[in-house]
Amino acid sequence: MSIASTPPAPYYAVIFTSIKNEKADGYESMAQRMMELASKQPGFLGVESAREEIGITVSYWESMYSIKLWKENAEHTIAQEKGKLQWYEHYTVRICLVQREYSF
Amino acid sequence: MSIASTPPAPYYAVIFTSIKNEKADGYESMAQRMMELASKQPGFLGVESAREEIGITVSYWESMYSIKLWKENAEHTIAQEKGKLQWYEHYTVRICLVQREYSF
Repeated sequence: MSIASTPPAPYYAVIFTSIKNEKADGYESMAQRMMELASKQPGFLGVESAREEIGITVSYWESMYSIKLWKENAEHTIAQEKGKLQWYEHYTVRICLVQREYSF
Repeated sequence: MSIASTPPAPYYAVIFTSIKNEKADGYESMAQRMMELASKQPGFLGVESAREEIGITVSYWESMYSIKLWKENAEHTIAQEKGKLQWYEHYTVRICLVQREYSF
């Protein structure tokens, strides 16, 4: 995992913030698989992820349309359902337009 | 640390993604202090943070103006300089308009 190398703004970000269930069997392999799948989607620009008390995954996308396609991806749809049933206590998704970026 | 409870969109997010130096003396107390200070700024809506290989801190703000005020806060300005000199190998800041939010 490294800092995502994204093109000049504007582009989109999906901030996914979550609290896992204490018992979340199969979570790690699902998370790994979703990263792989996302990275093959049209319009995917990169992803960053870290977890301590809460997990934060930020994925970057060319357009709202590419976000919509990823949300509707068949395998991702199943993972989203299992997420609600099994893996997550709570989560929040925020869809954002990245307007400016700078790096050091 | 919990998931930030933010008002209905639109509002702003600053995604700060970083890789720390191996030796980053004083980092934890600075990070703690910056969270405290930020939370007292006008227009502050919340913050979420996690670190593994990379650190991700997302702070939420009412307006671009409130982000500007926080960036220019005197103590924060010093921390930003020390960050470049001492604490961070690399970082990226992304300033975003949150357009949609949903939770489970």
